[in-house]
Amino acid sequence: MSERKYAIGVDYGTESGRAVLVDVATGEEVATAVHPYADGVIDEHLPGSDKPLPPDFALQNPQDYIEVLKETIPAVLREGGVAAEDVIGIGTDFTACTMLPIDEAGTPLCMKPEWRDNPYAWVKIWKHHAAQPEATRLNEIARQRGEKWLDLYGGKISSEWLIPKIWETLNKAPEVYEAADRYIEGADWIVLQLAGEEKRNSCTAGYKAIWNKRKGYPSDDFFAALDPRLRNVVDKKLSRDIYPLGQRAGGLTKEMARLTGLKPGIAVPVGNVDAHVAVPASTVVEPGRLVAIMGTSTCIMVLGEEEHVVEGMCGVVEDGIIPGFFGYEAGQSCVGDHFAWFVDNCVPPAYHEEAASRGLNTHQLLEEKAALQKPGEHGLVALDWWNGNRSILVDVDLTGMLLGATLLTKPEDIYRALIEATAYGARVIVEALDGHGVAVNEIVACGGLPGRNKLLMQIYADVTGREIKVAGTDQSGAFGSAMFAAVAAGDAAGGYDTIFEAARHMAHLQDVIYKPMPAHKALYDQIYAEYITLHDTFGRGANGVMKRLKALRQQILANG
Amino acid sequence: MSERKYAIGVDYGTESGRAVLVDVATGEEVATAVHPYADGVIDEHLPGSDKPLPPDFALQNPQDYIEVLKETIPAVLREGGVAAEDVIGIGTDFTACTMLPIDEAGTPLCMKPEWRDNPYAWVKIWKHHAAQPEATRLNEIARQRGEKWLDLYGGKISSEWLIPKIWETLNKAPEVYEAADRYIEGADWIVLQLAGEEKRNSCTAGYKAIWNKRKGYPSDDFFAALDPRLRNVVDKKLSRDIYPLGQRAGGLTKEMARLTGLKPGIAVPVGNVDAHVAVPASTVVEPGRLVAIMGTSTCIMVLGEEEHVVEGMCGVVEDGIIPGFFGYEAGQSCVGDHFAWFVDNCVPPAYHEEAASRGLNTHQLLEEKAALQKPGEHGLVALDWWNGNRSILVDVDLTGMLLGATLLTKPEDIYRALIEATAYGARVIVEALDGHGVAVNEIVACGGLPGRNKLLMQIYADVTGREIKVAGTDQSGAFGSAMFAAVAAGDAAGGYDTIFEAARHMAHLQDVIYKPMPAHKALYDQIYAEYITLHDTFGRGANGVMKRLKALRQQILANG
Repeated sequence: MSERKYAIGVDYGTESGRAVLVDVATGEEVATAVHPYADGVIDEHLPGSDKPLPPDFALQNPQDYIEVLKETIPAVLREGGVAAEDVIGIGTDFTACTMLPIDEAGTPLCMKPEWRDNPYAWVKIWKHHAAQPEATRLNEIARQRGEKWLDLYGGKISSEWLIPKIWETLNKAPEVYEAADRYIEGADWIVLQLAGEEKRNSCTAGYKAIWNKRKGYPSDDFFAALDPRLRNVVDKKLSRDIYPLGQRAGGLTKEMARLTGLKPGIAVPVGNVDAHVAVPASTVVEPGRLVAIMGTSTCIMVLGEEEHVVEGMCGVVEDGIIPGFFGYEAGQSCVGDHFAWFVDNCVPPAYHEEAASRGLNTHQLLEEKAALQKPGEHGLVALDWWNGNRSILVDVDLTGMLLGATLLTKPEDIYRALIEATAYGARVIVEALDGHGVAVNEIVACGGLPGRNKLLMQIYADVTGREIKVAGTDQSGAFGSAMFAAVAAGDAAGGYDTIFEAARHMAHLQDVIYKPMPAHKALYDQIYAEYITLHDTFGRGANGVMKRLKALRQQILANG
Repeated sequence: MSERKYAIGVDYGTESGRAVLVDVATGEEVATAVHPYADGVIDEHLPGSDKPLPPDFALQNPQDYIEVLKETIPAVLREGGVAAEDVIGIGTDFTACTMLPIDEAGTPLCMKPEWRDNPYAWVKIWKHHAAQPEATRLNEIARQRGEKWLDLYGGKISSEWLIPKIWETLNKAPEVYEAADRYIEGADWIVLQLAGEEKRNSCTAGYKAIWNKRKGYPSDDFFAALDPRLRNVVDKKLSRDIYPLGQRAGGLTKEMARLTGLKPGIAVPVGNVDAHVAVPASTVVEPGRLVAIMGTSTCIMVLGEEEHVVEGMCGVVEDGIIPGFFGYEAGQSCVGDHFAWFVDNCVPPAYHEEAASRGLNTHQLLEEKAALQKPGEHGLVALDWWNGNRSILVDVDLTGMLLGATLLTKPEDIYRALIEATAYGARVIVEALDGHGVAVNEIVACGGLPGRNKLLMQIYADVTGREIKVAGTDQSGAFGSAMFAAVAAGDAAGGYDTIFEAARHMAHLQDVIYKPMPAHKALYDQIYAEYITLHDTFGRGANGVMKRLKALRQQILANG
């Protein structure tokens, strides 16, 4: 037994699971292992079947989650040269809402032979979009009834969330709904497997299941208004017992200890969500410091002392990120995806050739060329709605716009304009928060983008007028889960009693700080004013051209 | 001597001159020859000098115009196997306003050793843009004075036109202004060379020099308001003797006969403009049939019975195209250039490779892919202002816009949207004319684009709701000049007494007719309504973002 103690975090992503072994005292990432899901995202047909799935389906096989533990945990112990007795806890985070029906024993229905052929018995992952009709209807009814919780979710419950997904099953496969003893988040199911305890976490309950620490779930009357059969859905299919983040769910079971090579009884915290654990992993455990998890899309998190209604939030949840604070979550639907679309579809051969000849990728070349410009030099402004707008307009039917093009416009001009558009979109969110009592004094970025594009980071600083720091870890999900594992283990076991202590010792920032350049900020203020005018014209109904064109397109495609 | 008679047309373009030898009875194009100008467009320094020219200069060497005659006319006679005695006339057309100062004998000042080093002594061609300050001031003064003629020119006199260019010389090189016996259009100067007669034509006088058949030039008071030194500019530097199109200016001089190998005394008509001679070359000599000369930009011409004020015309000139009619000219600044910009800047390698592997050019591949779509299927709408808007907004500071993009948007979607945008722009012009008493019942297209892109032609038919026919000649400038040569020669010499007769016998249409498809027209009506809303929002001042971004860009570039 060494004097050093370790915690393991496991991040369940869309295509794979990733474990990281972290030194609890220093936050050093000692070892990492990734295991891809054998069945991946199941969106064409069920494993072993050739029957096509309905449109917009996206499922997973829960057996893959177990395989991740079996493969990655022995791997990180081996790679790190760490003995099992020095690991004090194992924490997990999950994509969400990723939900499944289970029987009384916690066995997923899809693992039982009699339900294996029914797609509704499988795990519906976050990007399963087949519950859109139910989500649309739910929002109509909630609005008609004046449900107060609706504003805390930007006025719209997403088709990706729990209630629409349950209701979809009730409508399409009532036999599965009947057979399910209960519905559970993947985040909570994996904890049930690890610790043998069903301890549902406040993060997924709050952000994905409309649960509120003070007011509970929506009323049974509301659920009955959706469908009389849903009146008792909470009591019959969910649970009202919700546990705050960082709490110990239980000790690792003997069976799981055998599977992973860890010691039985080590701490297992309640489950959590990938984006949300990234917040303490980025050193943020207090209000005023916004975390932007920047990848294909951007997830924005900030803590507040009070519950405010801020336009277009994904959710405002007490204890939803860090216990004791209201966690505000907002999102931008199209960030890294935006630049990837541009490089794939809009960049001529000469640029790809120049990049290749200089050993760069095309993004790097475009960044280099775009970095030679001053703000406003390209004369362009774009609306960053290539994938709709999540915050603050909460409207998937908005589309992208580019304005200011001339015959002299070059690819790097457009590339820079698209980066700036996402920065303006971020500023809209920052100002919505800051203007409604949720301070944003600085920004901490994490995720894949910050390390790849310095120009982008500087533009974000210049546009938002905030200093931007960068998280030390580049696997903020798994790292944050390891932090929560250390908290669940507690000081006595070599961990920490609070996430605040864990953050102070384990989480780090990189040395780089992107500071707003006043001259650039002043120019961007001018262009941002133009962005806002366009944002409001096209986003708030004065000119509904985007929706009309999209409706026309859908009508034409539907008519073949 | 053969029984067949021939006429020659010479088209003076921007980079070269082109001659065509035409059978007067049938319109058969017997031979063609092109000769590039040795000095091309002079925009960096004068020939034989390394002194940089001022910005926005674009000059030519008039000696190059003579060389075109010397090279191309013997060439077409030789290639056509036609004897000089069978050629009854030679007509010319020119870019305009392309103007030069000459001495009393008609010699360009730039050909005289004492002036050769002075850029203002050379030919300023149409795209010389250094007179913008003078044009801006002229428009302000004309508006303040309530000059009625201003509305006939879309409310704006261009910096490309005659008076601003003369005024520029007066301001920058008053010694050249003083030394010039007179200023003359290239179109009239070449006629002076061929026939030894200064017979200024009504087309350039009307469209480029603010001359009106009934009211003459603007008053001397107006010119004095510009600059007291300009009070008598018309009488001192121009001429009030203006001749209608098709009229015989004189007979070919002996000197020119020697140079060209033609017979002295054959008919030389008054000069004309490239776009304007394309109208009879496209069979159009009557109202109701709009001619679109479609190339890098589009020039639109239609004849009317009366003088109406139509918003945003380049000009309305009696006898300006066909004697006896009011010629309406409008323009779109960015058509072929638009698609070329897109292919050069925005199409990824895979498309270029697929095109090459199939023996297509990239435009053809994009056309093929875009042609598989229905109107509205791509969900996009664009404002075709990549090079400003000529008609009907007359605003060079407008810029391009694309709206409706998503992560699924493909290059062929944008390509089709850009084509459609130019078609919407054309419809705006058609409706402005048709709504103000100038009927547009059908469209005849000529120029380079119609033969290259069938999809584009069909879209124009569907969007405008007009049948589109295509001119038989693909060199409508030189061909139209040959028609006017036949008219100047007259029936007695084997030609025709009127341009109407000439058009009936010489001009032809291709067999193809693009007919509007009602289902497509109905869809395009919906999208056109969106285009108009955007057109008015961004083009008429409700949202001046385009101008503000352009001004910001210019300010940033000016500050280095």
